[in-house]
Amino acid sequence: MQLMQFYIDDLIKKALLEDINYIDITTDYLVDDNATTAKLVAKDDGVLAGINVAMRTFELLDDSIEYDLFFKDGDKVKKGDIIAKMTGKTRALLKGERTALNILQHMSGIATATNKCVELVKGTNASIAETRKTLPGLRPIQKYSVVAGGGKNHRYNLSECAMLKDNHIDAYGCLTNAVNALREKIGHTIKIEVEVRDLKELDEALNAGADIIMLDNMSCNMMREAVMITAGKAVLEASGNVTHENIRQIAETGVDIISLGALTHSVKCFDISMKIDL
Amino acid sequence: MQLMQFYIDDLIKKALLEDINYIDITTDYLVDDNATTAKLVAKDDGVLAGINVAMRTFELLDDSIEYDLFFKDGDKVKKGDIIAKMTGKTRALLKGERTALNILQHMSGIATATNKCVELVKGTNASIAETRKTLPGLRPIQKYSVVAGGGKNHRYNLSECAMLKDNHIDAYGCLTNAVNALREKIGHTIKIEVEVRDLKELDEALNAGADIIMLDNMSCNMMREAVMITAGKAVLEASGNVTHENIRQIAETGVDIISLGALTHSVKCFDISMKIDL
Amino acid sequence: MQLMQFYIDDLIKKALLEDINYIDITTDYLVDDNATTAKLVAKDDGVLAGINVAMRTFELLDDSIEYDLFFKDGDKVKKGDIIAKMTGKTRALLKGERTALNILQHMSGIATATNKCVELVKGTNASIAETRKTLPGLRPIQKYSVVAGGGKNHRYNLSECAMLKDNHIDAYGCLTNAVNALREKIGHTIKIEVEVRDLKELDEALNAGADIIMLDNMSCNMMREAVMITAGKAVLEASGNVTHENIRQIAETGVDIISLGALTHSVKCFDISMKIDL
Amino acid sequence: MQLMQFYIDDLIKKALLEDINYIDITTDYLVDDNATTAKLVAKDDGVLAGINVAMRTFELLDDSIEYDLFFKDGDKVKKGDIIAKMTGKTRALLKGERTALNILQHMSGIATATNKCVELVKGTNASIAETRKTLPGLRPIQKYSVVAGGGKNHRYNLSECAMLKDNHIDAYGCLTNAVNALREKIGHTIKIEVEVRDLKELDEALNAGADIIMLDNMSCNMMREAVMITAGKAVLEASGNVTHENIRQIAETGVDIISLGALTHSVKCFDISMKIDL
Amino acid sequence: MQLMQFYIDDLIKKALLEDINYIDITTDYLVDDNATTAKLVAKDDGVLAGINVAMRTFELLDDSIEYDLFFKDGDKVKKGDIIAKMTGKTRALLKGERTALNILQHMSGIATATNKCVELVKGTNASIAETRKTLPGLRPIQKYSVVAGGGKNHRYNLSECAMLKDNHIDAYGCLTNAVNALREKIGHTIKIEVEVRDLKELDEALNAGADIIMLDNMSCNMMREAVMITAGKAVLEASGNVTHENIRQIAETGVDIISLGALTHSVKCFDISMKIDL
Amino acid sequence: MQLMQFYIDDLIKKALLEDINYIDITTDYLVDDNATTAKLVAKDDGVLAGINVAMRTFELLDDSIEYDLFFKDGDKVKKGDIIAKMTGKTRALLKGERTALNILQHMSGIATATNKCVELVKGTNASIAETRKTLPGLRPIQKYSVVAGGGKNHRYNLSECAMLKDNHIDAYGCLTNAVNALREKIGHTIKIEVEVRDLKELDEALNAGADIIMLDNMSCNMMREAVMITAGKAVLEASGNVTHENIRQIAETGVDIISLGALTHSVKCFDISMKIDL
Repeated sequence: MQLMQFYIDDLIKKALLEDINYIDITTDYLVDDNATTAKLVAKDDGVLAGINVAMRTFELLDDSIEYDLFFKDGDKVKKGDIIAKMTGKTRALLKGERTALNILQHMSGIATATNKCVELVKGTNASIAETRKTLPGLRPIQKYSVVAGGGKNHRYNLSECAMLKDNHIDAYGCLTNAVNALREKIGHTIKIEVEVRDLKELDEALNAGADIIMLDNMSCNMMREAVMITAGKAVLEASGNVTHENIRQIAETGVDIISLGALTHSVKCFDISMKIDL
Repeated sequence: MQLMQFYIDDLIKKALLEDINYIDITTDYLVDDNATTAKLVAKDDGVLAGINVAMRTFELLDDSIEYDLFFKDGDKVKKGDIIAKMTGKTRALLKGERTALNILQHMSGIATATNKCVELVKGTNASIAETRKTLPGLRPIQKYSVVAGGGKNHRYNLSECAMLKDNHIDAYGCLTNAVNALREKIGHTIKIEVEVRDLKELDEALNAGADIIMLDNMSCNMMREAVMITAGKAVLEASGNVTHENIRQIAETGVDIISLGALTHSVKCFDISMKIDL
Repeated sequence: MQLMQFYIDDLIKKALLEDINYIDITTDYLVDDNATTAKLVAKDDGVLAGINVAMRTFELLDDSIEYDLFFKDGDKVKKGDIIAKMTGKTRALLKGERTALNILQHMSGIATATNKCVELVKGTNASIAETRKTLPGLRPIQKYSVVAGGGKNHRYNLSECAMLKDNHIDAYGCLTNAVNALREKIGHTIKIEVEVRDLKELDEALNAGADIIMLDNMSCNMMREAVMITAGKAVLEASGNVTHENIRQIAETGVDIISLGALTHSVKCFDISMKIDL
Repeated sequence: MQLMQFYIDDLIKKALLEDINYIDITTDYLVDDNATTAKLVAKDDGVLAGINVAMRTFELLDDSIEYDLFFKDGDKVKKGDIIAKMTGKTRALLKGERTALNILQHMSGIATATNKCVELVKGTNASIAETRKTLPGLRPIQKYSVVAGGGKNHRYNLSECAMLKDNHIDAYGCLTNAVNALREKIGHTIKIEVEVRDLKELDEALNAGADIIMLDNMSCNMMREAVMITAGKAVLEASGNVTHENIRQIAETGVDIISLGALTHSVKCFDISMKIDL
Repeated sequence: MQLMQFYIDDLIKKALLEDINYIDITTDYLVDDNATTAKLVAKDDGVLAGINVAMRTFELLDDSIEYDLFFKDGDKVKKGDIIAKMTGKTRALLKGERTALNILQHMSGIATATNKCVELVKGTNASIAETRKTLPGLRPIQKYSVVAGGGKNHRYNLSECAMLKDNHIDAYGCLTNAVNALREKIGHTIKIEVEVRDLKELDEALNAGADIIMLDNMSCNMMREAVMITAGKAVLEASGNVTHENIRQIAETGVDIISLGALTHSVKCFDISMKIDL
Repeated sequence: MQLMQFYIDDLIKKALLEDINYIDITTDYLVDDNATTAKLVAKDDGVLAGINVAMRTFELLDDSIEYDLFFKDGDKVKKGDIIAKMTGKTRALLKGERTALNILQHMSGIATATNKCVELVKGTNASIAETRKTLPGLRPIQKYSVVAGGGKNHRYNLSECAMLKDNHIDAYGCLTNAVNALREKIGHTIKIEVEVRDLKELDEALNAGADIIMLDNMSCNMMREAVMITAGKAVLEASGNVTHENIRQIAETGVDIISLGALTHSVKCFDISMKIDL
């Protein structure tokens, strides 16, 4: 899995322009053009994501930089692990440090949080997915990081999969009619997901032929019943109020997918630091 | 304090393109072009930031939308408070909902977290500031949100204020010489900040005439001593391992600024929901 | 169905810059700033698409322009029909004419060609779809125009629906394994389409649980057999060498979708002219 | 003749983003990072244009790709000819295939159609030119392809050459006055073209000193007379209702230029396929 | 003559981002949101250009701003003249002041310098033109300002008019052959200009049928002879070492065009100040 | 000191697109793809700035180009000095010549003008600085060139340093209150500059604790007095009506900074030419 280089480059350039704008007065005025070595070190245990983006940040500031990677995206790292060693101009290393770390720490934070959930549901049928609750401009790297952490991606955007929420159903009038109307119009590659709040709605969604049904904020008991009723006729997604405490229980109801907004909307950065040899 | 509209517009458009790309198949195929009313409701207690950005999101999808704001950026909101009421095309409200909330919740999350710290140090000399540990492309709205929460902004970028960290000093050779060399070269509007790890370095930084001195990961005792030694000759900034638990203590040492990376690098979104009248 | 205004604006601006660059020397030097009236007239029979894009082109050159539309996207127009009447500055009408028509004629050309196919298969089970054979930068308006013409959209891009062609299967080794491997990894909102060339492959694809099966360049007899074998267990898409002559026959085999690259890669523009009252 | 690399790169990136957006789920999940060989094969007889753009598409996805070109832009290719051989990562070849072919087939389609006309008028005085009826964002590659096919470019845009059509003349009042007024204002590098519909207007345009005169939808007899009257005092351009059937006749009237909108507004793509060795 | 609004907007936004970046700390923190009045006053005698660009700058910061213009582009203003009066938010006026003036002063500087030359050659046959020696990103507004000052535009760019300089001729081998080769290839709307250094080259250029001949750094005597030899068979352009002292003399040789790089490469800004009523 | 490559690249690409747009008809049609050698030669005495930008221009048109630099930014060059020698494709050299020189000459013009002032105040306490009176889109290269010429940069933009001018003070009510209000709100890295017109205001600014005080259009006598009164408690900046004639006198008053708008708003280009070996 590989994001396109030029997409990544645009993101990095935007971040570098925010951080450097014009010149780095401290580095540009004090540090000469010599080369040195630096390394990235994990300050915690977690899952790595974005290491190529970090390296690319330095490369955009010094195209002669060279590096060795000791871990790759998706790998587990432990506190103290050396993740990468770079040799390049001191100036470029110092100028790029903050930007490279900001991105790497954010991406690894997502991968680590995702992986925590993946570990918690291990052995059950459930997969972990993010939602569309992403930060502006960061959706591709956030979605990528979820996969690096062992999760699966939910729909990328509103063009890609239909999802009928209360509002759509209310706006249209009735669930069954809405699903039928939609099926008439959408392309054949599009799945239809329907959000339901109780077993009556579940039934209606199943009869309407929904491909995926989102069980919205249901109790584990209700979800267990939903799984039995559905009996494989649709993919079941649990969503709403998922915590580290209840995620295992939810998974054990037999649902197929557990989606969590927090994976991307409330990211705790994963701590990584850069050490320069001077 | 006001970000430029066209900067905001570019950010929103980028986010809308990520989320809609081409069309919103559910809304475009099911919902007609009529108008309706919706409201934004706080789901928690906190500080608002980004409400104009959220409104602008809807406006970019429906230029006839109208809205009333009941709170403005920087205001405290309580769980259940109605923040805004909008009247516009149902389609635009549904299409823009996720993008508007993603931004608003992120910004309000920052303002709320900042304000929590501001409250904790109330009555002391200390101000709360963010760092350059921001997310790519989001620096302006993140910095703005810190101010909305009652914090003060640290330097915007590497062009704007010189900061000598270990690496710069090591690369140059000696703190005093580095500060002197820098002062020869930088413009007269630029302050010099020096990072110090102990009182000996503090002394050297003071003698070199640093405008600001960052006390890096010092104990409260050492910081208290630093405040006495400095005696107003430089601004003192405490940084590193600041928590809700120790922030009051740190503030009470007499430092001027407490800076926290977590305000922008590990944001917990502030929960706000949209209710549509259908 | 509605493309986002700012996406459309960017496309128009790009086209206007290509055509005007700096100034329109003929119009700028000869024509004064007065207002006049103009109308768009169909020069042939067909289906309209892009009329709002055309109007927006003039609006970007003269924000005081006013217009009445007598047809909307998806409507059938006949030779001589007046499609729209605009009142605005003569300069803006003359400067925008070519750009507005270039886009409108291209979009209406696609809608018209799509509709021709839709009419030809009327009464059968088959829908008409375009492919990813679109022109660079024009995918959104091309996909939109297919829908305006009565077609349905195939997958928008490579992120949205998996499609295993020969090359993927050969690269992976075996169809069944490839489908299984993919199902392990993709999100739950993604369908899997498999391209097959004969009934043996069809069988394998069905057993592997493909959601959609593309019958590549098959004879109508083979497709008829494929429809019977499949018996609704997957969506069947006919593709390759579809012409006006054979499309009805193909549709009558019972396939669900007929996809045609020519709808977007070989567009014949639909002739529309602008008449100015002077 | 060479378009600027960075212009081409922007066009390709735009197209790749449309087609890949985020990841290619089929290729990214199934195909490993190994290298392989592929070739581009002509599926018809025609004239090649855009082969460097196609190669660049792969290069932007895999900067280690290598290729041999057996034909260059402007060359005639025959059905079955191998146009290029590429060796690079299978992933990049699969991801870039559609985008590279979409552009190459469009450009070669234009070159082939242009060349058809060029062949039809061979031996006469007439050159073949396109018009401003181009597709949004594609003018540079469309104009380039016309030249590759043996045509000559008409004016690039409205800044570059003045052309007085009915509307301009009507808006100004009188042909002679309009030409004179324009000559007073335009730069010395600009030619003036006047559109005429009969011999009386031709006469007026000649007397006014038009550099180029467009004979709009005239019969061949009238054009022959126009050529005699003009006697080399202006360049004569025939335009309107030019077909493969009448183009030779038009050329034989002695006009200098025959311009066809269809070369760029109604392009039939030239079929080229990619074969991968797996 | 009118530049396209969105081109102008992009230029202004770029400049505003350079000057404001994030916030205007002085204005945003000290000045409230009330409205006030301001005026632009000429501090010297000259020719105005860019007044709409200046107004647009304020409009982009405050869409409710209103203004009266007392002069328009191309008008002569005298020291002390009030050029425009604006009523809008004090914040927007203060934030936009520098950016608006920077552009207006540059454009008016060009118009004023051009007009000075136009006045100096008044009554002769000669027109004044700029060259391609423009500043990066500013060509459209620089060319526009030359016209506002009474000059005529030279070729816009290298696509628009062929010009054979020494280097091209040397690279090709011989002037006559080069002109002929070029004529075979270029479109019929393109003029050919040839640079000559003596009368022998002039003769060759005339015989080759050059449309325009640039007399490069010739003495006035030689130019006078060139005018006689040419006798209207080509447009003659004088270029090189033109000063306020010798421009009248050059014009009196009878040349058609005098082109000056300094009009755009060495602009002296025209002084205009903004007065705010507070 | 080093601007970021991708910022520079964007500027060059913008300029190349203005100058070439599509193709260079003269060069593309007449000059073959062979390589040759060219050199840049100073036509005057001055200070070099922008040589890497000039080289990069050629590199963007021909990535195989090679060059030797005989001077670097900040070096003094004399009339006739060979600044650089390039070996690359003749086409790229001819196409890039104008754009490369336009940028190099502008930047070197700024460096040369700055250096002239620096030389004039040599031996005094005063530094030379530019202002925010820059050209749209060129601020980074203009600021960079001032440093190359030996000057120091004033504040980069309105986010970076507070400056209270009359208007701000009038809008707020009183200098002392305005400074105090501002100090409450701005970050700790921001300096406050106050513009004063007489010694009374100077006194008030000093008492308010301004970091920098701008002496606006004061006589040298008044400035001398201001220096004595200030006695090092603030940085003093002289501004307004600075000329080559009076700059030494101003410097000798003891002020710290002399700022000149003309360094960037009224640049005289420094003449450099390119000679190609053909």
